[in-house]
Amino acid sequence: MSSIFTKIINGEIPAYKIAENDHFIAFLDVMPLVKGHTLIVPKKEVDLIFDLESEEYKNLWGFAQEVAKKIKNAIPCVRVGVAVVGLEVPHAHIHLIPLQKVEDMNFKNERLKLSVEEYTEIQKSIINN
Amino acid sequence: MSSIFTKIINGEIPAYKIAENDHFIAFLDVMPLVKGHTLIVPKKEVDLIFDLESEEYKNLWGFAQEVAKKIKNAIPCVRVGVAVVGLEVPHAHIHLIPLQKVEDMNFKNERLKLSVEEYTEIQKSIINN
Repeated sequence: MSSIFTKIINGEIPAYKIAENDHFIAFLDVMPLVKGHTLIVPKKEVDLIFDLESEEYKNLWGFAQEVAKKIKNAIPCVRVGVAVVGLEVPHAHIHLIPLQKVEDMNFKNERLKLSVEEYTEIQKSIINN
Repeated sequence: MSSIFTKIINGEIPAYKIAENDHFIAFLDVMPLVKGHTLIVPKKEVDLIFDLESEEYKNLWGFAQEVAKKIKNAIPCVRVGVAVVGLEVPHAHIHLIPLQKVEDMNFKNERLKLSVEEYTEIQKSIINN
């Protein structure tokens, strides 16, 4: 069965898309730790990020770098943090998280509940940076 | 003033080194969240990882991939997690953290206190994988 991320990639589930190319996609996490929390996903459905072929793996991180710079410009934060955990969805993904403090990256924190308008505003502000 | 990581790179402060090349170094975190917690550091002293030049940035992640595979083989874990936070040391670094559960990556957790013998054993087991 396709992962939830593959369903997003195939357009079967909607997402607040930030960037996309032939190999990778970036969209807002719909259970964000903070505003601007974004996921970077390879279109190839692999579980462990380190199992990606070396060039694709490095290009995935290159794609994340471009998106992180946009997030940094769009969302007030001290810096953009990075996390790869992957214990919940078996499809490799990178979390980009605008940080004010180290606690912002605790995955046991309660997730924000944002409105469609809030997500759309965040999406636009990142894309336009 | 040099960062604590530059002092490690220059051999002014000892470290349990895992791997090194002309551009990057990997060594055990001496305040580990779990056994096998390793830091990946570019020798160039930059604060924000996303400010590294694109090729060096991607090669840093490539170096991290090689080390992560060794950690995965050496340390019993479900997977090797990744984090970039950097609010404490202003010299870009990647945390590689062998995870059993998502809580293992909470940076507010109490750090392990290991003996020289324990660090040395972990170091050897990662290097030999």
